[in-house]
Amino acid sequence: MTFVAEPIEVTPEELDRVSYNGDGLVAAIVQDAENGQVLMMAWMNAESLAKTMATGRTWFWSRSRQEFWCKGETSGDRQYVRAAFYDCDGDVVLFIVDQEGKGACHTGERSCFFRAFGPSPDTNDPTTEETGAPTE
Amino acid sequence: MTFVAEPIEVTPEELDRVSYNGDGLVAAIVQDAENGQVLMMAWMNAESLAKTMATGRTWFWSRSRQEFWCKGETSGDRQYVRAAFYDCDGDVVLFIVDQEGKGACHTGERSCFFRAFGPSPDTNDPTTEETGAPTE
Repeated sequence: MTFVAEPIEVTPEELDRVSYNGDGLVAAIVQDAENGQVLMMAWMNAESLAKTMATGRTWFWSRSRQEFWCKGETSGDRQYVRAAFYDCDGDVVLFIVDQEGKGACHTGERSCFFRAFGPSPDTNDPTTEETGAPTE
Repeated sequence: MTFVAEPIEVTPEELDRVSYNGDGLVAAIVQDAENGQVLMMAWMNAESLAKTMATGRTWFWSRSRQEFWCKGETSGDRQYVRAAFYDCDGDVVLFIVDQEGKGACHTGERSCFFRAFGPSPDTNDPTTEETGAPTE
């Protein structure tokens, strides 16, 4: 399946509502548009958030490498933003994306949250019965 | 609707796979079991994570108040854990919950992510057409 990137027409006022932590970062949750599965969480600074909006693809800030990374640029597992939200405190952002390729996780799993605590579900896909979510 | 709390039978080995940041905290994403909606993100320390598993209800650590809080204990908007996951790096945890009462947000909204960037959806509920997710 081929996805097309669509910029988000964000206003400066909306971007101003985002609060960054002491390191200049905001937590960014990424959720699969297809089934609502939470795919990953990573960090953005103001510039990577602006690049995400401008390009319609997710850009993060690597704390360990101190550099920008565009998700999937090397792996091909790109994320195309379909909707974006900020929380009540403005210190977490949420992206709903079309996930291309194998998935979001560098291990090859679709979601980074592929391991459950306890004898519970094998998947965090909320559309399956295993997570306790209704399937219909 | 009345929900029943069910502890998660977590092993010490699983808990050891969680990595805490310099402040001893791990980010905790909470997702609605009913529709996959991301409800909130807050922080847990090792003790609040253990309390969450032992009680089957979400316990967080308030960075501003420097105290534990059990979600909904005063508001009635309790969260009953149905599944719990940790990510590939062990530095983010994910809870899928039955959300009681009005919702997760202190503003009275069901989700803390009730504001979209740009002229996009009014809701982050992934089961609605507005977020771009398929409804069938």
